[in-house]
Amino acid sequence: MTTVGILGGGQLARMMVLAGAPLGLRFVVFDPAADACAGPLAPLQVGAFDDMDALARFAVGVDVVTFDFENVPAASARWLAERRPVFPNPDALAVAQDRLSEKALFQSLDIPLPPFADIRSRDELAAKAAEFGMPCILKTRRLGYDGKGQFRIRDEADIDAAWQALGAQVEKTGLILEGFVAFDRELSVVAVRGRDGEFRAWPLTGNWHVEGVLSASLAPAAVAPAQQDAAIGYARRVAERLDYVGVFALELFCRGEELLANEMAPRVHNSGHWTGDGAETSQFENHLRAVLGLPLGATHALGHACMLNWIGRMPDAAAVLAEPAGHWHDYGKQPREGRKVGHANLRADDAQALAAALERVGVALDRQAQVDPVVHALRR
Amino acid sequence: MTTVGILGGGQLARMMVLAGAPLGLRFVVFDPAADACAGPLAPLQVGAFDDMDALARFAVGVDVVTFDFENVPAASARWLAERRPVFPNPDALAVAQDRLSEKALFQSLDIPLPPFADIRSRDELAAKAAEFGMPCILKTRRLGYDGKGQFRIRDEADIDAAWQALGAQVEKTGLILEGFVAFDRELSVVAVRGRDGEFRAWPLTGNWHVEGVLSASLAPAAVAPAQQDAAIGYARRVAERLDYVGVFALELFCRGEELLANEMAPRVHNSGHWTGDGAETSQFENHLRAVLGLPLGATHALGHACMLNWIGRMPDAAAVLAEPAGHWHDYGKQPREGRKVGHANLRADDAQALAAALERVGVALDRQAQVDPVVHALRR
Repeated sequence: MTTVGILGGGQLARMMVLAGAPLGLRFVVFDPAADACAGPLAPLQVGAFDDMDALARFAVGVDVVTFDFENVPAASARWLAERRPVFPNPDALAVAQDRLSEKALFQSLDIPLPPFADIRSRDELAAKAAEFGMPCILKTRRLGYDGKGQFRIRDEADIDAAWQALGAQVEKTGLILEGFVAFDRELSVVAVRGRDGEFRAWPLTGNWHVEGVLSASLAPAAVAPAQQDAAIGYARRVAERLDYVGVFALELFCRGEELLANEMAPRVHNSGHWTGDGAETSQFENHLRAVLGLPLGATHALGHACMLNWIGRMPDAAAVLAEPAGHWHDYGKQPREGRKVGHANLRADDAQALAAALERVGVALDRQAQVDPVVHALRR
Repeated sequence: MTTVGILGGGQLARMMVLAGAPLGLRFVVFDPAADACAGPLAPLQVGAFDDMDALARFAVGVDVVTFDFENVPAASARWLAERRPVFPNPDALAVAQDRLSEKALFQSLDIPLPPFADIRSRDELAAKAAEFGMPCILKTRRLGYDGKGQFRIRDEADIDAAWQALGAQVEKTGLILEGFVAFDRELSVVAVRGRDGEFRAWPLTGNWHVEGVLSASLAPAAVAPAQQDAAIGYARRVAERLDYVGVFALELFCRGEELLANEMAPRVHNSGHWTGDGAETSQFENHLRAVLGLPLGATHALGHACMLNWIGRMPDAAAVLAEPAGHWHDYGKQPREGRKVGHANLRADDAQALAAALERVGVALDRQAQVDPVVHALRR
């Protein structure tokens, strides 16, 4: 019996446990929070990610280690990797944790991306903002997610405010300025690479964010085959360069026919949640297959699927469950503003049926604003 | 947060827990065995099914009760039903536990079935065997499953041996003699009925048994629409008469165009395991939706699916996982002769692709005898 250790015990770990049990796997999850939502489904070890004594106890009980949380200190990951196989490897994790390293990697692989610059001072910020043009976005290099640790600079007058908000982070996390892309839409590639180098990608996913947090995903995204091939090719280049093992997501901005890399997430990803009900093999199962060196499962979509994120609190399930192919995912969390507490997947064999289902759910839950952009994309 | 109590902690409970977690459910499983395989995924209370003190503690911690094991004493189920909602209801459970009551029910509902008789003595056995013709089968009325508690009477000379084997059970479990059906094939209806009376059935499943134990299932079974309608109509009649809530299976013999009811199982059923990967909603999820009064999910098949049971020990997973739509289900049990330890589901959009996949798996695992009848049915 193989035991998989997961650093982080949130919903990603929870869904990995659910996908891994049928593979005969056991799990241990490690999380600072005693109420981590994977806890009811697997033994939970409570500890800090930099507590080496706790990590040593964790390592003893597991055969292989992976991540639910991408910001586990790279030093902890490296320390564990001396004791147990760790996938993805700690170097890949370290690159993905740092927006500057990540963008430098994209650049070195000839993957198009918006302009960016390492920012060490207010003067550098002002100079680069003028060079890139405004709006542009100042971000922490590390430890930002879901729109946190970001400041949007609309014009020169915002530079002081931006520096005031984030300047103190220059030593702690570093800062990066990114040119703003007036994108038509956001896409992501969710892909998986096995221990033997086998690479597979799910169909491209279209994503909609609200206040920096994913609101809805649609797959397969309606993209030209050449664009899909380019995007998946970028993901493959990144994975091969990093000798990446497991699932990851590459987020892209799409402006006309141009694709620009935004960032990568070195783990199963919210924009791949639709695969749980809408693809032959889910991202959660394929991540585990990759980590264990098992053959990868097929990544084709089963028709069309939309994922709706539930933020803050769960809506009533009945409207989704009443749909012919409505699937519910409650992470078992306490409600809290801004918290990802669950999602729904809606699936249909054709795009118009999916649009109709989304419209019904939008009305029933009074969430038309969440479903409308997806319906619009499906009706186009 | 709703907590579902499951009496019995085997693989059916395990798969219910996996299907129920995304619905936001918590579980407690109750089983006499400390190593019950649902244990790693949900709190396990170890106790005997007739230990009322243990059942009282169990009832306190759950909101609703259902079953993984159909032979929980009906008295225990009735006792629990005075304290918590229990689905299916204890009277339905009691009928399904007793082959004689079950067949009397089928008869009263004009569902065709093989001849049967309550047997109280060796002389009655001899007389009824002569009347039905031999071969015929002597069975215990209660507590038999997977071919256990059965004796096949080939000719008159077997009557003494049959009585010797099972006669002692006449007071304990009762005995029933069943006429033998020279069937062409075995089918099952897996169906679900909600608290509000809504009824849905998955497409008919074709089943192959080896030594009384299910070996393989294929769905949708190739049957004439009229036959499918008749079979599902029988299942509906049974469910409505019993005011049944949850998933159940009705096993049928098929002889030419004739369908004869064999028995019902008042729970999710091995012949419905294919729904975990081959239907829009699995039997496990729909059972829970029914028990909780949630809308039922769609029961249509996604293409064609075959379930292969693993008995005794798990084969190597790689051959199945290497198939484009091969899904693995390891129950996490210790190997033991005759024990159901797992299954595989293979899915394909068309029948010939499924046949080809089965042939590859049969060769790779040296299990041609298991896959051949299914391949033959798909190629017909």
